Amino acid sequence: MTRTSHQQPGKRHQQPAKRATILDVAAAAGVSRQTVTRAMNNMAGISAATRERVQGIAAELGYSPSRFAKGLVQGARVSVGLAIPDLTNPYFPAFASSVVEAATQRSWNVVVDDYGHGTATALDAVERLAPQVDALIGYLGSHAAQAQSLMGRRPLVSLDYPAGQAAGRISFDYHHAARLALDYLVHSGRTRIAFLDSDQGGPAASRGTAVAAVADQLGITLIRRAAGPSAPAARAAVLDLVTGQDAPDALLVFNDLMAAGALKALQEAGLSVPRDCAVIGMDGIPLGELTSPELTTLSLDLRSVGRAAVGLVEGLLSGGVAAGTEQSALVLRHELVHRESA
Amino acid sequence: MTRTSHQQPGKRHQQPAKRATILDVAAAAGVSRQTVTRAMNNMAGISAATRERVQGIAAELGYSPSRFAKGLVQGARVSVGLAIPDLTNPYFPAFASSVVEAATQRSWNVVVDDYGHGTATALDAVERLAPQVDALIGYLGSHAAQAQSLMGRRPLVSLDYPAGQAAGRISFDYHHAARLALDYLVHSGRTRIAFLDSDQGGPAASRGTAVAAVADQLGITLIRRAAGPSAPAARAAVLDLVTGQDAPDALLVFNDLMAAGALKALQEAGLSVPRDCAVIGMDGIPLGELTSPELTTLSLDLRSVGRAAVGLVEGLLSGGVAAGTEQSALVLRHELVHRESA
Repeated sequence: MTRTSHQQPGKRHQQPAKRATILDVAAAAGVSRQTVTRAMNNMAGISAATRERVQGIAAELGYSPSRFAKGLVQGARVSVGLAIPDLTNPYFPAFASSVVEAATQRSWNVVVDDYGHGTATALDAVERLAPQVDALIGYLGSHAAQAQSLMGRRPLVSLDYPAGQAAGRISFDYHHAARLALDYLVHSGRTRIAFLDSDQGGPAASRGTAVAAVADQLGITLIRRAAGPSAPAARAAVLDLVTGQDAPDALLVFNDLMAAGALKALQEAGLSVPRDCAVIGMDGIPLGELTSPELTTLSLDLRSVGRAAVGLVEGLLSGGVAAGTEQSALVLRHELVHRESA
Repeated sequence: MTRTSHQQPGKRHQQPAKRATILDVAAAAGVSRQTVTRAMNNMAGISAATRERVQGIAAELGYSPSRFAKGLVQGARVSVGLAIPDLTNPYFPAFASSVVEAATQRSWNVVVDDYGHGTATALDAVERLAPQVDALIGYLGSHAAQAQSLMGRRPLVSLDYPAGQAAGRISFDYHHAARLALDYLVHSGRTRIAFLDSDQGGPAASRGTAVAAVADQLGITLIRRAAGPSAPAARAAVLDLVTGQDAPDALLVFNDLMAAGALKALQEAGLSVPRDCAVIGMDGIPLGELTSPELTTLSLDLRSVGRAAVGLVEGLLSGGVAAGTEQSALVLRHELVHRESA
């Protein structure tokens, strides 16, 4: 994985954050300690003007509420919430495991919330997690701004949706990924390239948008299909596609789980992969090494994604990274990992 | 999945638990309200004798601390902790997802803790979860009794380790599972049957113990190997086994993840599955439908496991199931799901 980042790793050491106390802020703002607490935690009981003024002075003095400072300075455990949409797609437990690993190295706790059941949304997870954590990492889709407001000044790192107004943001360069895959397929002589998208829409649509845009640039007439984001749904959609009139000779698939379903469909249709149809997935989860043929895929180094998210939380908690700035926005890139399916 | 259970589903309706208040218990025991609170939560500041006496009277009167009662009676959210050892083995996220699903149907929250990183043990997870949950479900190995003591009188449901002294226990009938698999292999004419175990020991050893005992009963000379509980480790161990002098014609594998690694090893060795060597896994996770050939496996209905665990928590919280009794001990059974590998 290539990382495009505006973060300066040395910065925290060059400019150690001065730890102003709540009393420094109260004195400078001419308010009580209680008012500072209210302002810093977005609590009721003070005017918006006072809140903004106190928050401004706190930022100037480098003050952050003692709960976080305690966690970092005195070694009390930092608790990080992790909101994910679906434990049954192996991408998310793999990502969660990488976050837990990076957090454990810092002696932090991670509380995982899987909100993909019933009618729950990412916001339900944030509502459950917010009262009990110092920071939040999550796949929040379009809810990032609302989630940040629920977290108040505590850091939120939002993944895969660059437009959200979270303190920290990790997004993926899908144009880069699409170009890697489509370039490779074109140069391998594939002429009927299909993209199997997820039918979920919302933030998930950014992959399809990028693939379509790059296909346009390369002059490829892309065959497009969509299916539910599961292996059986992808299997049914691909079986339908490859036995129809529009049969492709290459298939780029929304994620590895769906790509594993696509491989089963091609096998079922009596087609040889990659000879009759090449398959490229997206994610880089271990599942891709257990399919036959093994899956060629646009791979994220999942451990790096977890490390990046936890590192961003650490920077935001310590003040080494400023919330909502270019510094706090990481763009991660996929690599094309060549296995057997393309 | 067949369920062997001593639970009487109708009981809660026949004998609705009387909700004694903290004041009833204090009056009956001749102590203060505060002493009842200390006794019910195993807090310091009272003698062991007083604690036991108060707990006994509370049990007699059917009193449970108001936090839980509130959750059940007034509709406040019940929070359940879930301690699992490894999100990278797809069994555990699949199980976690089934727990979250069953809990979501009751509008409960689930907090997941993956303790399998660094030097952490199940007890570390329980220590993190205990302050924030009303009940705990977990794969706790031999730590169940200590975990229950950390939870005090709040219910703990411990999985896969029947000897632990948890309020609720769910165990799996591995003798039944081993008999299903070995009977089938023997009747298919297999004569050189191997069992690939996990090398982890501890509670994980109960699968191997059961397989060995059943093999003895059936007069099978079992070839035994062990490997780390991952697909690549199983792959290496099986490649070594099938290219050596002791090459088996059937392979029963500790879990599906390792069985998927075994399938790759057999393919790599140029052996045809099931013709040259049959493979049977254990767990029944969706991964087994994505391998080629698809995996024949001793399958738990994972949704039923999650439902059973959450149902047990509900029974324990409401008083419909008594802690530590036969009622609170469920034994679940695997089914042999025939796919392609055996």
